[in-house]
Amino acid sequence: MASERLDFACALAHKAGNLAMDYFRRLDTLTVTAKGHQDLVSEADRDVETLVRNEIAAAFPHDGIIGEEHGVVAGTSGYTWVIDPIDGTANFVSGIPQWCVILSCVSEEDIVLGVIRDPNAGETFKAGLGQGAYLNDRAISASATQSLAQGSVGVGFNGRTEATDAINAIGALVSKGGVFFRNASGGLMLAYAASGRLIGYVEAHMNAWDCLAGMLIAREAGNGVLPFDLARALKTGTRVVVGAPGVFEDLKIIAEASFAPHDSDEIVA
Amino acid sequence: MASERLDFACALAHKAGNLAMDYFRRLDTLTVTAKGHQDLVSEADRDVETLVRNEIAAAFPHDGIIGEEHGVVAGTSGYTWVIDPIDGTANFVSGIPQWCVILSCVSEEDIVLGVIRDPNAGETFKAGLGQGAYLNDRAISASATQSLAQGSVGVGFNGRTEATDAINAIGALVSKGGVFFRNASGGLMLAYAASGRLIGYVEAHMNAWDCLAGMLIAREAGNGVLPFDLARALKTGTRVVVGAPGVFEDLKIIAEASFAPHDSDEIVA
Repeated sequence: MASERLDFACALAHKAGNLAMDYFRRLDTLTVTAKGHQDLVSEADRDVETLVRNEIAAAFPHDGIIGEEHGVVAGTSGYTWVIDPIDGTANFVSGIPQWCVILSCVSEEDIVLGVIRDPNAGETFKAGLGQGAYLNDRAISASATQSLAQGSVGVGFNGRTEATDAINAIGALVSKGGVFFRNASGGLMLAYAASGRLIGYVEAHMNAWDCLAGMLIAREAGNGVLPFDLARALKTGTRVVVGAPGVFEDLKIIAEASFAPHDSDEIVA
Repeated sequence: MASERLDFACALAHKAGNLAMDYFRRLDTLTVTAKGHQDLVSEADRDVETLVRNEIAAAFPHDGIIGEEHGVVAGTSGYTWVIDPIDGTANFVSGIPQWCVILSCVSEEDIVLGVIRDPNAGETFKAGLGQGAYLNDRAISASATQSLAQGSVGVGFNGRTEATDAINAIGALVSKGGVFFRNASGGLMLAYAASGRLIGYVEAHMNAWDCLAGMLIAREAGNGVLPFDLARALKTGTRVVVGAPGVFEDLKIIAEASFAPHDSDEIVA
C-alpha cells in the first residue's frame, strides 16, 4: 500500500513542480507590481494544491488530505496526505530559485512516505517508511561528521514563535565553532540535512506540511530526529531537530537551551 | 574598452561555470570520503581559476589579475581582473546547488564590470560601469521596499571577523521586523540583493574577489552601496552594505552598530 503511494507521490510531486515552475517563470518575465506578484503567487499556490488534491482524490479516494491552503479533508482508509504545494513562498515570490513541493502521507501510527521535489535543481528527495532514503535514484545517508565545527546547520526562522528563538540557536551554534545556513525553504533545508549536505536542521516550530516529509527522509537516511507526537503535530505543528548521528545530541541541547516553549511543545517519553 | 571586456567576461563566466559544473556533477555521483571530496573541490577551484586566467591572459595580455587561489599578476593596461572561480565552496563541496563564478575588472578609479554566473540556475547577473544591470538579457533594478519588514536581507558570515558580527546584525534586523537569509554564497546573495530578490546584504568583511562584482551590479541596479576605498579593498577586503534605496540608511545603521572594527575598515569621506 505504502510503496504504491510512494511511486504515485514521486510522479505527482514532479508534475506539481512543473506546474509551479510555469508560474515561477511567468513571475520572472512579467514586470508587475508587488501586489501583482503576490496575486500570481497566491494563484500558483492554489492551483498547485488543487492539482495535488485532485490527483490524490482520483487515485486514492478514501485517503484524507491536509494542506496549508485548503484545510482538511477527512478519509476512511487510515492514510492521510499532508501537503505543501510551494514551500519557500518568500523565495518563490521574489524570484529566488530555491523552493520545493512537499508531499507526505501518514498512517495513524507514523509517517509512511515523504517526497520533496526541487524543480529548479531537478532533485527529488524521497523515503518510504523502512525503505531507505533517496535523492533521485541514488541512496542518501546522513553526514559522517562528528563535530558541529565540521559542516553547516540549517536554522529555521518564521513569524510564529519568539524572534529570539533562531537568534539564540545561531548564537549557540556559532559559539561551538559552527556555521548557520538559512535559504528560506524549510523543506529544502531538511532535505539537505537528510542527505548530509547540511549536518542538521533546527526550528522552534514547523507545521506538519512543512516538516513531516523531511523528517521521514532524514530518519531513513540515518539521522537523529527529535521524537514528536504525530496526532498533535498534525493539529498544531511541532519543534524540529534533525541531525547527523555525531552531532544530534549537541543539536538537541542547543534547541532545548535556545527555543522558548510553544503551545505545540510537549514531553514525549 | 570596458564593454568589450564585459562581453568577454560574460562568455568566460559561462564557460567557467560549465567547467565547474562538470566537477560538481562528479562530486554528486562519486562515493568518496570527505577528504576525497575536498581534493576534488580543490582541483575544481584550481582548474577553473586556471581556465579563467589563461583566457584573460590570451585576450587582454596587458591586464592584471587578482584571484583567491593563485595570487596577483600585475598588468600595464590599467585594468585588473579580480576573480573568484567558485564562490560558495562549502555548498559546492557538500552538493548544495547554490554557488557561482564571479568575475570583475577594475581600473585605478572604479569597478568597470562585474559578472556573477550561477550555472545551476542558468542565471548571469552583469553590469558595466554606467551601463545598467542585467540578469541574462533583462534589466534588473533594486527592490522598491520602504521597510525592513518587507523583504529579506542577506547576512554574510565567515571566519575572518568576530563571530558576533553576524549575530548582532541578525538580532538588529529581526528586532525591526526583518528576516535574514544566508545561503552561504556571498556572490549569489549580492546578486539577489542587486536584483531586488533580497532587499539588501550586509557582511562585516568580504575579500575583493567576492564582493566587487556584486557591488557594481547592485549600484547599477539602483541600490545604495557603502563607499569604500578601492585600492585598499583590493589588498585587505572591505565591509559590505548594499541595500534598496528605501532601507539602505537602516542597513548602514545596523552594520555600524553590529560589526566590530576590522583592520580593513576605514573612514571614507
